[in-house]
Amino acid sequence: MAIVLGPNQYGKAENRLVVVSRDGSTHTIRDLTVSTSLRGDLADTHLTGDNSKVLATDTQKNTVHAFAKQAPVGEIEDFALRLGRHFVSSQEAISGARVLVDEHPWQRIEGNGHSFVAGGAEKRTTAVTVEGDRAWVVSGVRDLVVLKSTGSEFHGFPRDEYTTLRETDDRVLATSVTARWRYQGGGIDWAASHTAIRGLLLTTFATRHSLSLQQTLYAMGEAVLLARPEVAEVRLSMPNKHHFAVDLSPFGLENHNEVFYAADRPYGLIEGSVLRDDAEDAGSAWYSLPMF
Amino acid sequence: MAIVLGPNQYGKAENRLVVVSRDGSTHTIRDLTVSTSLRGDLADTHLTGDNSKVLATDTQKNTVHAFAKQAPVGEIEDFALRLGRHFVSSQEAISGARVLVDEHPWQRIEGNGHSFVAGGAEKRTTAVTVEGDRAWVVSGVRDLVVLKSTGSEFHGFPRDEYTTLRETDDRVLATSVTARWRYQGGGIDWAASHTAIRGLLLTTFATRHSLSLQQTLYAMGEAVLLARPEVAEVRLSMPNKHHFAVDLSPFGLENHNEVFYAADRPYGLIEGSVLRDDAEDAGSAWYSLPMF
Amino acid sequence: MAIVLGPNQYGKAENRLVVVSRDGSTHTIRDLTVSTSLRGDLADTHLTGDNSKVLATDTQKNTVHAFAKQAPVGEIEDFALRLGRHFVSSQEAISGARVLVDEHPWQRIEGNGHSFVAGGAEKRTTAVTVEGDRAWVVSGVRDLVVLKSTGSEFHGFPRDEYTTLRETDDRVLATSVTARWRYQGGGIDWAASHTAIRGLLLTTFATRHSLSLQQTLYAMGEAVLLARPEVAEVRLSMPNKHHFAVDLSPFGLENHNEVFYAADRPYGLIEGSVLRDDAEDAGSAWYSLPMF
Amino acid sequence: MAIVLGPNQYGKAENRLVVVSRDGSTHTIRDLTVSTSLRGDLADTHLTGDNSKVLATDTQKNTVHAFAKQAPVGEIEDFALRLGRHFVSSQEAISGARVLVDEHPWQRIEGNGHSFVAGGAEKRTTAVTVEGDRAWVVSGVRDLVVLKSTGSEFHGFPRDEYTTLRETDDRVLATSVTARWRYQGGGIDWAASHTAIRGLLLTTFATRHSLSLQQTLYAMGEAVLLARPEVAEVRLSMPNKHHFAVDLSPFGLENHNEVFYAADRPYGLIEGSVLRDDAEDAGSAWYSLPMF
Repeated sequence: MAIVLGPNQYGKAENRLVVVSRDGSTHTIRDLTVSTSLRGDLADTHLTGDNSKVLATDTQKNTVHAFAKQAPVGEIEDFALRLGRHFVSSQEAISGARVLVDEHPWQRIEGNGHSFVAGGAEKRTTAVTVEGDRAWVVSGVRDLVVLKSTGSEFHGFPRDEYTTLRETDDRVLATSVTARWRYQGGGIDWAASHTAIRGLLLTTFATRHSLSLQQTLYAMGEAVLLARPEVAEVRLSMPNKHHFAVDLSPFGLENHNEVFYAADRPYGLIEGSVLRDDAEDAGSAWYSLPMF
Repeated sequence: MAIVLGPNQYGKAENRLVVVSRDGSTHTIRDLTVSTSLRGDLADTHLTGDNSKVLATDTQKNTVHAFAKQAPVGEIEDFALRLGRHFVSSQEAISGARVLVDEHPWQRIEGNGHSFVAGGAEKRTTAVTVEGDRAWVVSGVRDLVVLKSTGSEFHGFPRDEYTTLRETDDRVLATSVTARWRYQGGGIDWAASHTAIRGLLLTTFATRHSLSLQQTLYAMGEAVLLARPEVAEVRLSMPNKHHFAVDLSPFGLENHNEVFYAADRPYGLIEGSVLRDDAEDAGSAWYSLPMF
Repeated sequence: MAIVLGPNQYGKAENRLVVVSRDGSTHTIRDLTVSTSLRGDLADTHLTGDNSKVLATDTQKNTVHAFAKQAPVGEIEDFALRLGRHFVSSQEAISGARVLVDEHPWQRIEGNGHSFVAGGAEKRTTAVTVEGDRAWVVSGVRDLVVLKSTGSEFHGFPRDEYTTLRETDDRVLATSVTARWRYQGGGIDWAASHTAIRGLLLTTFATRHSLSLQQTLYAMGEAVLLARPEVAEVRLSMPNKHHFAVDLSPFGLENHNEVFYAADRPYGLIEGSVLRDDAEDAGSAWYSLPMF
Repeated sequence: MAIVLGPNQYGKAENRLVVVSRDGSTHTIRDLTVSTSLRGDLADTHLTGDNSKVLATDTQKNTVHAFAKQAPVGEIEDFALRLGRHFVSSQEAISGARVLVDEHPWQRIEGNGHSFVAGGAEKRTTAVTVEGDRAWVVSGVRDLVVLKSTGSEFHGFPRDEYTTLRETDDRVLATSVTARWRYQGGGIDWAASHTAIRGLLLTTFATRHSLSLQQTLYAMGEAVLLARPEVAEVRLSMPNKHHFAVDLSPFGLENHNEVFYAADRPYGLIEGSVLRDDAEDAGSAWYSLPMF
């Protein structure tokens, strides 16, 4: 028996970066959280503490900063690709890089060109993996919280000895969408694609009648795949943020789905993926990412 | 020497309430976090455990739920006033009530009348205090995060043996505004007033050149008081969310206030109040609220 | 009518500081979060942006760092007093200072003298206020989470039209204690006093039968005051972290207070103070601190 | 081209459960967070909303509650195995179950047998996967925060155009350990094994001189595997929680690694795995768990 080093990676996580660019007196800001991870021939540092192949995480941070200045940041996918390719191409020992970027939304305040108010909790995300001269892009949204106050049912589920839930043909359906979609092909307009996909997710959630959150999840992924050939696969994680109609009968009141208690925990958690049967192979696209 | 009971209050905190109202197929939702606190002749429960004057916090929760059904919720100030007056008038032992309401924003998703996407982290807040037949309303905003990428300087500060900070005539200024304003007089249109005051806070932050965050804070409060006679006083707590320009010179790059590191901690914390010299007396308006 | 500047203060919040001291090969660490706030003749910066009296928050941070080196940190009360007195005595415009220190616990890992594992979430806290040559010390604990699985009842409360809660003579009682106590007199051994007071809070929570959380709160404060003459007053904020016995009857099981669901929100919130009737005057001890 | 359902699972997440057991007047409490996820023949609910194979997440919650009463909870691994096996064996459509349990530590308060104070943030964890009559157990610790104030170096790393970090032969090393280890074989004493492994992780962190956090990570995993034949593999995620020695030279002070600023973000993130070359096959042990 021997003990061996298995899969491993290392990097600098959550670099908080705000980049200001100017067009005359009109400023644009980009608010990014960037995490980099490298992998490759890293046995030495693990086994003997020889760091001669370990590009310091501090250097990775510096690289993120410098790259944000050397050229326009552009879309987060482009920025992540540039970073990932740099690490893999410049360090002989590094065979793979993963770059995560979250973009935090801001809106302009009227009155001048340089003032902004933070948008919501929703993030636009990307996870780029580079290996040699190959690269994969998995983009997404996180903390996209949606609710529909009707148009959702849940019934027909099996009843075993532990089942007490009543069937319902009208409930509040609320979730916080984490979606990741894997791009395929080339020549993708990242911004346009993101806007369109986000819109499809929202519209499908809103307008498809729901018999289960699973059905809604599948419909959301399917809508993206039907409309966007550049997407190979969609993975979704959607907590069922329960809203329980309060029993007002002790007070002589009827609650016609008007007053709800929004529970924190526990919550349902529905996770799934939707894909094309002829999708490009995923390769290392999902390497070390959450499954959902 | 004797040991005595001092100030005290009790209640149910953070009732998470979503209320749906329908106008045909168009739904409106109100997402509220409601906390109630009561005070009065409560020595018995503290000293002997006799609870005969303790309206249970569970009952307070039920009351919040029932009131959300018995009449339209209306503006959060009205809802809080109804609740506070109910507790004080219905319980002989209860001489004072404080009701806090946070309202969480949602926006409609196009496509039908019953689907919504969560707005930002910003909350509209109110803190209502009722004593006997008197009432005070302190409303506000919380987690209103703003940033200006220029138009902010900081210099002329004293230099002692521990001072290393360089003076600057151009920096990023970012903060998360907690503002509370005390209303005075009557016949206030809560929604219109809130919208106007929020707008004044944003516009003033955006357009007033800043020599210190203190100056910005004062200007924001002053703008509200100048325009809104129904406001007696404004209290503001504004962390200086530091954005440090990254030193790119080791990489042969000049950083003309383009690339910033957004620090988490420590942060500056600027707190202050602005008031009319002829304001109505504050009475119990601020009872047990944070000073800033 | 004129608009005027009201109460205000400013400072650097949440300096995260770890201080290592060595006694041979045995190290001791102190993990502190330090916040400083200054007040005084600060109208200029608010009204005109003249910062000539504004000791920069960056300087305040530097001072915290330097003071941690110039002399042994000592107890957090001593460290806060040194800092507060320095700011007030060295800056003519500054009439008052408030210094908050939280100390985070660590425990030794056996095997050498320089390795540690983090203790719990509980913090030892102090809030020191200095004005001229006067000073007040309010120390405490925060996030001290306790639970008793019996020895708690709640009944005899009034029943109005919104009351549905059943009386109980046996429930789980759990809370997260925030306690602040105001010291009086001189020559206090801060560490010994803290240890003793914390012990009294725990023992009283554990051993006093509870008819209401209010009664428990009062008993905890009273126990401190009876035993510790150096304490003038105790203020406590104690959320009632509800543990609901799960109804297992649908599954043919009886739940004799064995299986509980620990709810997040809403929660009861019991806040109160206990004091000596001959306590030293509080002066500015509580200035800008939470009431509970 | 067709669009198809890919991997998916669903369940009830973060059931917060406190279980009290009594031995005379001495009580023992178990504070657990339990999440269940099921997978199998679930296409219908995704494609048509037919829920006839969807054991409701509410039923899963009820099952957790009932199982906590029907037999002693025992070690979290046993509890998770019972739950997972129940779901797979009782539901024809369900081919796989994953049960996560976190256990939160409490300590007794002296004075009676039923009072407790919460331990630290550290959790004992397990992730059990059941498929048919097979089962895998991956246990671990989370939020185990450790620090050593010396005995850590970092040098010999490559210097590229973006490298500014200075080499050091003495630094503070601090991390929050997430460790997961996969058990193999049978007849394991879960509690004893957990205690021993946790001790090995702590002792190795404390006593092994560190030339890189990677080396420390590997040594920690290796120590477990050398001593514990029941462990097939260890996966570790260890953020490098940077503690920067403050430059006190502007104040005429030398900082001999005494005063540190504890940074929040960014942080290094070191992730890796250590395994036996003859380990049992992992099968589905890691299904849908984080890679590190």
